[in-house]
Amino acid sequence: MTSVGFVGLGNMGGPMAANLVAGGFDVKVFDLVPDLVAAVDGASGADSAAAAASEVDVFISMLPAGQHVRGLYLGAGDAPGILDQMNEDTLIIDCSTIDAASARAVAEGAKEIGLSMLDAPVSGGTAGAENGTLTFIVGGEESALERARPVLEKMGANIFHAGGAGAGQVAKICNNMLLAVLMTGTAEALALGVDNGLDPAVLSEIMKVSSGGNWALNVYNPYPGVMEGAPASRDYQGGFLVDLMRKDLGLALQTAQASGNSTPMGSLAANLYQVHRDVNDSGGLDFSSIQKLFKPDV
Amino acid sequence: MTSVGFVGLGNMGGPMAANLVAGGFDVKVFDLVPDLVAAVDGASGADSAAAAASEVDVFISMLPAGQHVRGLYLGAGDAPGILDQMNEDTLIIDCSTIDAASARAVAEGAKEIGLSMLDAPVSGGTAGAENGTLTFIVGGEESALERARPVLEKMGANIFHAGGAGAGQVAKICNNMLLAVLMTGTAEALALGVDNGLDPAVLSEIMKVSSGGNWALNVYNPYPGVMEGAPASRDYQGGFLVDLMRKDLGLALQTAQASGNSTPMGSLAANLYQVHRDVNDSGGLDFSSIQKLFKPDV
Amino acid sequence: MTSVGFVGLGNMGGPMAANLVAGGFDVKVFDLVPDLVAAVDGASGADSAAAAASEVDVFISMLPAGQHVRGLYLGAGDAPGILDQMNEDTLIIDCSTIDAASARAVAEGAKEIGLSMLDAPVSGGTAGAENGTLTFIVGGEESALERARPVLEKMGANIFHAGGAGAGQVAKICNNMLLAVLMTGTAEALALGVDNGLDPAVLSEIMKVSSGGNWALNVYNPYPGVMEGAPASRDYQGGFLVDLMRKDLGLALQTAQASGNSTPMGSLAANLYQVHRDVNDSGGLDFSSIQKLFKPDV
Amino acid sequence: MTSVGFVGLGNMGGPMAANLVAGGFDVKVFDLVPDLVAAVDGASGADSAAAAASEVDVFISMLPAGQHVRGLYLGAGDAPGILDQMNEDTLIIDCSTIDAASARAVAEGAKEIGLSMLDAPVSGGTAGAENGTLTFIVGGEESALERARPVLEKMGANIFHAGGAGAGQVAKICNNMLLAVLMTGTAEALALGVDNGLDPAVLSEIMKVSSGGNWALNVYNPYPGVMEGAPASRDYQGGFLVDLMRKDLGLALQTAQASGNSTPMGSLAANLYQVHRDVNDSGGLDFSSIQKLFKPDV
Repeated sequence: MTSVGFVGLGNMGGPMAANLVAGGFDVKVFDLVPDLVAAVDGASGADSAAAAASEVDVFISMLPAGQHVRGLYLGAGDAPGILDQMNEDTLIIDCSTIDAASARAVAEGAKEIGLSMLDAPVSGGTAGAENGTLTFIVGGEESALERARPVLEKMGANIFHAGGAGAGQVAKICNNMLLAVLMTGTAEALALGVDNGLDPAVLSEIMKVSSGGNWALNVYNPYPGVMEGAPASRDYQGGFLVDLMRKDLGLALQTAQASGNSTPMGSLAANLYQVHRDVNDSGGLDFSSIQKLFKPDV
Repeated sequence: MTSVGFVGLGNMGGPMAANLVAGGFDVKVFDLVPDLVAAVDGASGADSAAAAASEVDVFISMLPAGQHVRGLYLGAGDAPGILDQMNEDTLIIDCSTIDAASARAVAEGAKEIGLSMLDAPVSGGTAGAENGTLTFIVGGEESALERARPVLEKMGANIFHAGGAGAGQVAKICNNMLLAVLMTGTAEALALGVDNGLDPAVLSEIMKVSSGGNWALNVYNPYPGVMEGAPASRDYQGGFLVDLMRKDLGLALQTAQASGNSTPMGSLAANLYQVHRDVNDSGGLDFSSIQKLFKPDV
Repeated sequence: MTSVGFVGLGNMGGPMAANLVAGGFDVKVFDLVPDLVAAVDGASGADSAAAAASEVDVFISMLPAGQHVRGLYLGAGDAPGILDQMNEDTLIIDCSTIDAASARAVAEGAKEIGLSMLDAPVSGGTAGAENGTLTFIVGGEESALERARPVLEKMGANIFHAGGAGAGQVAKICNNMLLAVLMTGTAEALALGVDNGLDPAVLSEIMKVSSGGNWALNVYNPYPGVMEGAPASRDYQGGFLVDLMRKDLGLALQTAQASGNSTPMGSLAANLYQVHRDVNDSGGLDFSSIQKLFKPDV
Repeated sequence: MTSVGFVGLGNMGGPMAANLVAGGFDVKVFDLVPDLVAAVDGASGADSAAAAASEVDVFISMLPAGQHVRGLYLGAGDAPGILDQMNEDTLIIDCSTIDAASARAVAEGAKEIGLSMLDAPVSGGTAGAENGTLTFIVGGEESALERARPVLEKMGANIFHAGGAGAGQVAKICNNMLLAVLMTGTAEALALGVDNGLDPAVLSEIMKVSSGGNWALNVYNPYPGVMEGAPASRDYQGGFLVDLMRKDLGLALQTAQASGNSTPMGSLAANLYQVHRDVNDSGGLDFSSIQKLFKPDV
């Protein structure tokens, strides 16, 4: 039986680890919050990240930001990283959504001592984590991905190989920046149509099958009442939060700055989301609530 | 046999009229340029717009801008409009893409004297006009649309009813504004990915089936070499020209200004298209060439 | 004694006409609202715009928008314009802030029948109108401006000659678009500094004498408490209203669209003002209240 | 005689150190490039940064980025920082333009071991460095600034106290972000006026004394031919380079992201500068060359 170590048991990591247990793996978990360790039924608790990473076939991390991932693997200040303490045949999968530079730095550190590492950020939210239907966007060696596949398949429904180390992070932030652009653009187009007398559902249907067609119109319409089940139809509760979109947009813009790319549309969307959070106190709402910036009374 | 009058025989109107002839209608045509009249085989030429509109079951106009449509129907200066000279049972269909205010003004003028009028702007470009596969987005009465349907079906493959008078124009410019936003956003996301080491085809595939999915990724990828047959793969020749997109964006922004709507993403896209035309002299290129603003060397 | 006709006696026109009376001119006034006519002490009331324009040395109009100015001078529908009814030696001065195309069209109409016309939009607000300290930005012939100067000097403190017909309007909207950009930019820079620990007054002083120096920092600081007497220090009451700035930005963007100019910064400022009005219900606040978009709790 | 250590002798640091020598200080200098050390006549060369910082009354650093400043003072990897090796009565002045977080981190490190530190980024460019007319924007204790003043006065003409540690950096990037906004806004306003028939010099004069007045119009007009001596009138050679403005905008946007501020105007200006560099290959031109984005043929 394949053994898996798992560190980072929050809203995403917890259910992911639980799905690995359910999938028949021998799972060892660690989190700085003891209650989260206890919450993963059927897993064994480890005393430290290093202990969770010790003597396992596959080690998975799910952490908030690049500094945490760097710290875990490479060390920070006086605290040593865990890379040096791992078996050389342990496959490392970092599922955190972090900046590509950190992802590449840690993968490089792993490679130097002969360890294989994948960056495999996810999309699909907490529902996807719970239902095992996440999408993984993976950077790293093809062969490492093949080894990882049986494990990832217990947690997700789609696996994409984006390229070498860091490519998973790059692809994810490109996608999410584009998502912010099209959601914001869709919201303002709907507001323009409605304020000129159109029915939002009719306009949505027309654009969906025309050249304005996009994911938001297909499955995540931001206008209340158009699409049953979408966050817009339940006061923008749940879903993918404005604050999480802001985080991903921050990563995208950092990446663009580092590579000297212009991203005027993504930058404007990021600023509109920031204004939306500030004036509408909307950090905890679904990101389709950007509709309220264009039509405050929806 | 249904008789149809047709005024405005340019790149779009000419083939549309030809398709009506081919569809078995009795077609009477007029254009200020005599050669264009002569070019519609099988149609009879009229000496004036009023003559083309006289004693027909259906009258269709396909003109460049709102002022031309207002002038044709309502008159301009000393020149009288043709509305007063038409049979009261003639159905009017204006297929021009114009500002909604003009569309509503003309429809109102027609209604006052008992005439039915539809605004029915098209999408699909010259290829759609030639192949009879245009999309019509129609504003006006449902009953008028039913009368128009047999005629429209000879010229197009899709017919949408957007709402009352002017709604066709509103829906079209909402759609095209959104199209500009998603094409621009897609282009900048692809440039960001490529400059961070990703293959544009791989990144396109990932985003297409993820939350960044949109029409541009599906059928009109702006990055050269990714999609065979797309304008991007033939030096951005043909397709939907930058100057036409600029015109449509102008209509969208005028409409937004009139209704007091904010459209920050659409406005930025319009400005980027303007900069693109200025610095890249790209008015005559396909609109997906906006890719060059983010990656000059593609 | 020079005789002056004056049409349009609102918040601006009323005090301007009163200053002409005080300056010793023989003033004849008209407005569609009779009470406004009666309110100009010392002026004689006319029964119509045409009557006010009849047999005067100078005729001045102060109207809301281009359509009103076109209608007044050139006629609209069945109503004739007043140009044809004026003495050929009457000098026309339109002080309205309108689109340059309308200004040019009316000046052209005047010229065709031998009349001299100036476009002379003002800045300085109602306080400037009352105190006779307006700034006039004038388009038209130099010789006409010299004839106008004694009249304008009773109403204003500064007179600029921007160029030929329409140039006054163009210069004013260029200036006001730039004003919107620098006010918005100043507000966001101040918010950024304050949220990073700086005192807004100290930061303002530093930027004022550095390369960030601009009119807003000099005399119209948007941050509450920094500048006594500025609208920001009295809850953004009075001053130059958001809705008036929105109107001027609309004229600027129409002009840019007509001439095929990109104005990304002006367009974004216009959209931010629109969002600000929508989410903060701020149409009636001073335009420096854009500060609230970047720091809602000021 | 006051002794000063100086590290970082590039285009800015070299002349600054020379001015200290000329001002009568006993100056000890270091740079990784030996030729730069030799170029400072009258200074003694040190073998290392630590040697230059040893036993001096004042120590000054002028380095490219936050990572270099952190590395110098706090160490990086195995290389120790110099803080631990300095006299406790040595006053530290970092004149680098870096991110505020790094400035605060280093100041904190200094404070922990009893050393006083100022962040004192400059403006004024290489000409200001050579002529001793720089502007210093200083963060740190008032008492430390008083000690620093005699030294700073040999290198600069203006000294501002922005606040506590890091405040100098914050104030500088706020100012420079605002500068980018007003330069870009001025350039687009001038292009709009010119393309509508105005003379750029006349329009500039009008806006300069109106509410559009700003530093660019006063001393740095971006339109060629308007202002003798400005970079615009010498093909945008020299001055403050586009690439340096891009660097400062990057710092501003990083700071805004860290503090959760929206800066839509600054972000758009940053993206326009990026596009300008990409399509016009303008990284080495003066930053007022942004005019070319709005009027390619200037």
